[in-house]
Amino acid sequence: MGFEAVWWDDGERAVGYVDQRALPHEVARRFARDVAGVVAAIETLAVRGAPAIGVFGAYGTALARDLHPDDDDFARAAARIRAARPTAVNLAWAVDRMLAEGVSLAVARAIHDEQRAVDRAIGEHGGALMPERGSVLTHCNTGPLATAGTGTALGVIVAAHLAGKRLHVYVNETRPLLQGARLTTFELAVAGVPATLIADSAAAATMSQKDVKAVIVGADRIACNGDTANKIGTFGIAVIAAHLGIPFYVAAPRSTIDFSLRDGSGIVVEERGPAEVRGFAGIPAAPADVDVFNPAFDVTPGRLIAGIITEYGVARPPYDESIPDLQTRPNFAMLYR
Amino acid sequence: MGFEAVWWDDGERAVGYVDQRALPHEVARRFARDVAGVVAAIETLAVRGAPAIGVFGAYGTALARDLHPDDDDFARAAARIRAARPTAVNLAWAVDRMLAEGVSLAVARAIHDEQRAVDRAIGEHGGALMPERGSVLTHCNTGPLATAGTGTALGVIVAAHLAGKRLHVYVNETRPLLQGARLTTFELAVAGVPATLIADSAAAATMSQKDVKAVIVGADRIACNGDTANKIGTFGIAVIAAHLGIPFYVAAPRSTIDFSLRDGSGIVVEERGPAEVRGFAGIPAAPADVDVFNPAFDVTPGRLIAGIITEYGVARPPYDESIPDLQTRPNFAMLYR
Repeated sequence: MGFEAVWWDDGERAVGYVDQRALPHEVARRFARDVAGVVAAIETLAVRGAPAIGVFGAYGTALARDLHPDDDDFARAAARIRAARPTAVNLAWAVDRMLAEGVSLAVARAIHDEQRAVDRAIGEHGGALMPERGSVLTHCNTGPLATAGTGTALGVIVAAHLAGKRLHVYVNETRPLLQGARLTTFELAVAGVPATLIADSAAAATMSQKDVKAVIVGADRIACNGDTANKIGTFGIAVIAAHLGIPFYVAAPRSTIDFSLRDGSGIVVEERGPAEVRGFAGIPAAPADVDVFNPAFDVTPGRLIAGIITEYGVARPPYDESIPDLQTRPNFAMLYR
Repeated sequence: MGFEAVWWDDGERAVGYVDQRALPHEVARRFARDVAGVVAAIETLAVRGAPAIGVFGAYGTALARDLHPDDDDFARAAARIRAARPTAVNLAWAVDRMLAEGVSLAVARAIHDEQRAVDRAIGEHGGALMPERGSVLTHCNTGPLATAGTGTALGVIVAAHLAGKRLHVYVNETRPLLQGARLTTFELAVAGVPATLIADSAAAATMSQKDVKAVIVGADRIACNGDTANKIGTFGIAVIAAHLGIPFYVAAPRSTIDFSLRDGSGIVVEERGPAEVRGFAGIPAAPADVDVFNPAFDVTPGRLIAGIITEYGVARPPYDESIPDLQTRPNFAMLYR
């Protein structure tokens, strides 16, 4: 396994985490020893990836209960953790669940275990779709660092590798924040999966020249027709894959599906600030005042997606039938317990 | 006009150039005062862009003649300049032409003037293809810095702007060397054309959301069926443009066409070193030992290209008829003189 992104440390009585800002140059294991430390780790992106933040927040809430015997003090502490990253729905969900089920390490561990089980199921279902040998291409970071489990799209790749398939992974660097270059290459090295880093702009040449038999990515939000919001760049890769006849897969837990959305036109795409594109890892490259368009996500039409892999199995087109069907399934955590 | 990339400076008795390594943060005008200075400017990429290197080498050869009255000394000097960048065919071509026509400032100036005339003709022919208003998208650097004239694809955009068309340009940053971020945004600012910088991975989202009515790029080598080698990333953009129904144009002088190539399968793509993708400007982002695939170019199939703009006009599909026809035209420099 190699490393965990987030864990409870009994000896330290603290929430442990790998500081993702130091990767890949250093695996810095740190501890959040109080509520301020939990909030700071989330706010500074030392811990990132929505599911990983959720697990971290659950452990943090258990820690807060331990440190704040007074109910009012604790309520304020839990509210601070819950608000540390407003866009990560998993964080609020995890804190609320802790409060609803009774704040304890046991509940936090259950949340973590369920995350692992969901990831493992995604890995098994998706692993069967991977080729016996050949290359696959992925974008952004969807491994253990992002989920605190085995990951979604990267979990599928690693599961296939562990099942004996001989895969080579091409990793898009994923500008502007370089999660592919910084995190995914590191995770694949830890997992022992052969991998090659490419500039995002080299994806088309790589797909056409390097025996790429499948593309697999994660998702931030999925509509009922399969339209999928994911890291900027995903849409273009899906178009290129379709052009070249390469199957394009999405791997994500059912919680990523927004059953209230008929299609992707209702997805509002967050735009981030210009500094990320004007420079590279803090080094300015472009004119300081150049106008920038920096959408965090794009929306890939469901018709370009060969399959959507969740913990329940692989949803196939037509998605407006297979995706609503997922809403009727029993809670996976219940099945797992 | 704003600036020239390369010029002969009578007062300094030297070849002037803008040091492109310092852009966009500083417009550093420098002088090559001897053969070592000419060679160093080319080798260090202070002067880059194949046509610009050709013009620079022509002036440098005239300077060498002035400094080395001894014929053997001069022959060695000319050979050093000619070999300073082996892959830039324009450099060897320009030095050879100087030697053939008689080494003088007048011949160097003629080479420069012809480059300007070719660029101007490309700009006029291509400008007519640009929309009256709306957005266009481009990749890499194809402006005055690259050609020492008005540029190829960027020259088309600026010509349309000067003709009163109201264009907004989306500029791909163009990893790994960021020529779009560093150079193209600077050139567009000098020309007064509204522009917005994007990550390469945002091209598909930009094309689908931002009223992009045309894509235009340069070329490194064109085969007789229109297959076009150009900066890595071009192929993917062409596929996306086709998917979205946006016309995709290539602008390049006739000298870019390799009439000996039936199609792009004969084009050997240079692979560059891994450091460019592992980081930027010496700042590491990825694991230091990660494997990298870093092709400098990709090949866009001619069937994805709506028109190829040369100094002779716009070649249209079927290219295996329109491109060989270009070979029969009289020499443009003869027409121009």
